[in-house]
Amino acid sequence: MNPQTTDSTEIRLPTGFRFAGVHSGIKETAKDLAIIACDAPSTAAGVYTQNLVRAASIDWNRQITPSSIAAGIVINSGNANACTGGQGHRDNQQMAATAAEALGCEADQVLVLSTGVIGQSLPMDCVDPGIRQAASSAGNKTTDFLDAADAIMTTDRFRKTCFRAFSCGDSSGVITGMAKGAGMIGPNMATMLSILVTDCYLSPQDADHLLRKAVNVSFNCISVEGHTSTNDAVLLLSSSQGTPLREAGQVAAFEAALTETCVDLARQIPADGEGASHVIEIRIDGAKTDTDADRIARTIAQSALVKTAFTGADPNWGRIVSAAGYSGVEFDLAETALTLNGHTVFESGQPAPFDPAAVSQDLRQNRDAQVVLSVGQGPGRATHWTSDLTVDYVRLNSEYTT
Amino acid sequence: MNPQTTDSTEIRLPTGFRFAGVHSGIKETAKDLAIIACDAPSTAAGVYTQNLVRAASIDWNRQITPSSIAAGIVINSGNANACTGGQGHRDNQQMAATAAEALGCEADQVLVLSTGVIGQSLPMDCVDPGIRQAASSAGNKTTDFLDAADAIMTTDRFRKTCFRAFSCGDSSGVITGMAKGAGMIGPNMATMLSILVTDCYLSPQDADHLLRKAVNVSFNCISVEGHTSTNDAVLLLSSSQGTPLREAGQVAAFEAALTETCVDLARQIPADGEGASHVIEIRIDGAKTDTDADRIARTIAQSALVKTAFTGADPNWGRIVSAAGYSGVEFDLAETALTLNGHTVFESGQPAPFDPAAVSQDLRQNRDAQVVLSVGQGPGRATHWTSDLTVDYVRLNSEYTT
Repeated sequence: MNPQTTDSTEIRLPTGFRFAGVHSGIKETAKDLAIIACDAPSTAAGVYTQNLVRAASIDWNRQITPSSIAAGIVINSGNANACTGGQGHRDNQQMAATAAEALGCEADQVLVLSTGVIGQSLPMDCVDPGIRQAASSAGNKTTDFLDAADAIMTTDRFRKTCFRAFSCGDSSGVITGMAKGAGMIGPNMATMLSILVTDCYLSPQDADHLLRKAVNVSFNCISVEGHTSTNDAVLLLSSSQGTPLREAGQVAAFEAALTETCVDLARQIPADGEGASHVIEIRIDGAKTDTDADRIARTIAQSALVKTAFTGADPNWGRIVSAAGYSGVEFDLAETALTLNGHTVFESGQPAPFDPAAVSQDLRQNRDAQVVLSVGQGPGRATHWTSDLTVDYVRLNSEYTT
Repeated sequence: MNPQTTDSTEIRLPTGFRFAGVHSGIKETAKDLAIIACDAPSTAAGVYTQNLVRAASIDWNRQITPSSIAAGIVINSGNANACTGGQGHRDNQQMAATAAEALGCEADQVLVLSTGVIGQSLPMDCVDPGIRQAASSAGNKTTDFLDAADAIMTTDRFRKTCFRAFSCGDSSGVITGMAKGAGMIGPNMATMLSILVTDCYLSPQDADHLLRKAVNVSFNCISVEGHTSTNDAVLLLSSSQGTPLREAGQVAAFEAALTETCVDLARQIPADGEGASHVIEIRIDGAKTDTDADRIARTIAQSALVKTAFTGADPNWGRIVSAAGYSGVEFDLAETALTLNGHTVFESGQPAPFDPAAVSQDLRQNRDAQVVLSVGQGPGRATHWTSDLTVDYVRLNSEYTT
């Protein structure tokens, strides 16, 4: 395995896909419509929002994945097509049908993603020509991929992409991904979307299984304010042009590269906070199980009191330990220790002697903050990422928008 | 039954109790130590924080309640005596022992409550003389009660008291309560404490049962940021000098008065938000069960996106419907309707036509906001109260405090 971190100028693309991002007119001037077209029927897997209130696109995709017949994905930004009733479902189907006509396939081979304001019907007189334009201009250059990555953004301040090259024995390939979603949530719902493409040979079942595992330790471990959107989705497409993963070691190596790609993209979301002054990594170890550790990490990550402590560079360990305490997980306080950016502040159930001014200065000087909470001797561990809660967050989210 | 709302100048006290609030020196100048003394052994019940990280006082009280031998409660503010290890437990026991000596009873007849900063040992050289001073000066006048109510406050901007007179057939009495806890959480943990005293005849089992039911629909239904403190507690003392509750109707009438007292006190907590610009009542009806309704209400009340929408007087129904959607409760969106301050904004799973400017003006002009979400035809209902999330909240909670 040979993972490499890279910036978007060094993106490598897997074979078998074409990309486009155009302006259709949903937004005033920015790109708002993307297409990812498969050169041949491809393997597709998806992981979707658990919100009972779901966009039409989510219901549509759940009928298609996992499968090996995907022809592409059409994505619009600026309008989530959620809470739009029967019209929303008809508009979603029309998006798939228009893309299918342009790509030369059936509608049920086309996945659909939407993100933006909710409760408003899609302006199909813009969307339809936009889809045709995108389909006809799709290409396999890096700039085409970047156009698509731009077109899925809403309140994002920067484009989110990532790639990993993967090699193990005679099997190798590329996993390339894009994502949207911002730590600072704009006037409406903060949808998180990510699309991963690979040339590695994958069966639909393997794609589904491996994507779920990777999402579970990446996109499911970021929180900005705990709101699960109506439109959240992560899709994985495989052109299966590479060498099949024959051995367990090859599967493990691919899984590691996929997970790294997802973690890299996921971390870019809380980092993209207009109002955020810290990105906080919360690592829990020593729990009885990974599930217990995950629950503690999630509770800490969603605490407004913890978040505001980091905003003020305040080493207020009481808020963190107390949040762990109400997570619902059993642990022994006498075996609990806490470090903030490497400084031990709590140990064996009691405050540890530390220099508050020094820890505060450390927190103030570093945008990346790290919490490590050990809650015992167990094997359970989890890592979550979140952003802090600032005055700007409140300002932006309380602006009058309707 | 004859419930009456009253301000503190009209407080009536049940017979059988004496009160005091003094300055012992934990805080710089404000009152910080209260005593509630029973004239004779009294019935006591308690409901305590579920946080695994508990103050010494919580463990102490759990060994005493429910019982019929309580001699009083000693309460200090300014220091929570939490996360203080073995020393904390010894200090807590000493508080009870000192109070017992002054009151002429055994230590295990004395309940203890603490609230304030966590992780620091109690200054027992102040606390001990303070307890003696309070015990010797305790009286049964309204001013004594109000002194005690003042002495339990921490970041509260106003004193929280409430009383209900209760009469049903030949049974009558008074329920009087005090509480502390503020919507705007200060530099440290926001402990919620409440103490209720009554002269109504109650067995320990009845007191325990009725208190749990009342707390469940009052103090358990307020949220500021979802943080459960290490020290949260509600205690009920009964001098049992009134007429026994003989009939089911009398029990029901007492229960209603107790519940009203708890709801009145609980609502004062989110209302006491230095940074809060709205107190939001969230009513859910039509759910399958009360538990389902409670879960939906709680999820909405804890959403930062919902709270900031109210801060901006923004009738952003999407955030509310979406929060209900990720609560984990099953409901039919097509049967769902939402009103904001009486204006219908969402109906039958689709946006309802409404004048956003008019609803916004309504939200802007009224500090009390009301959300009513109907999620079906079921019998389940619940009401929660929360405050909005403002720039001042973040400012105050992110100040450097260690």
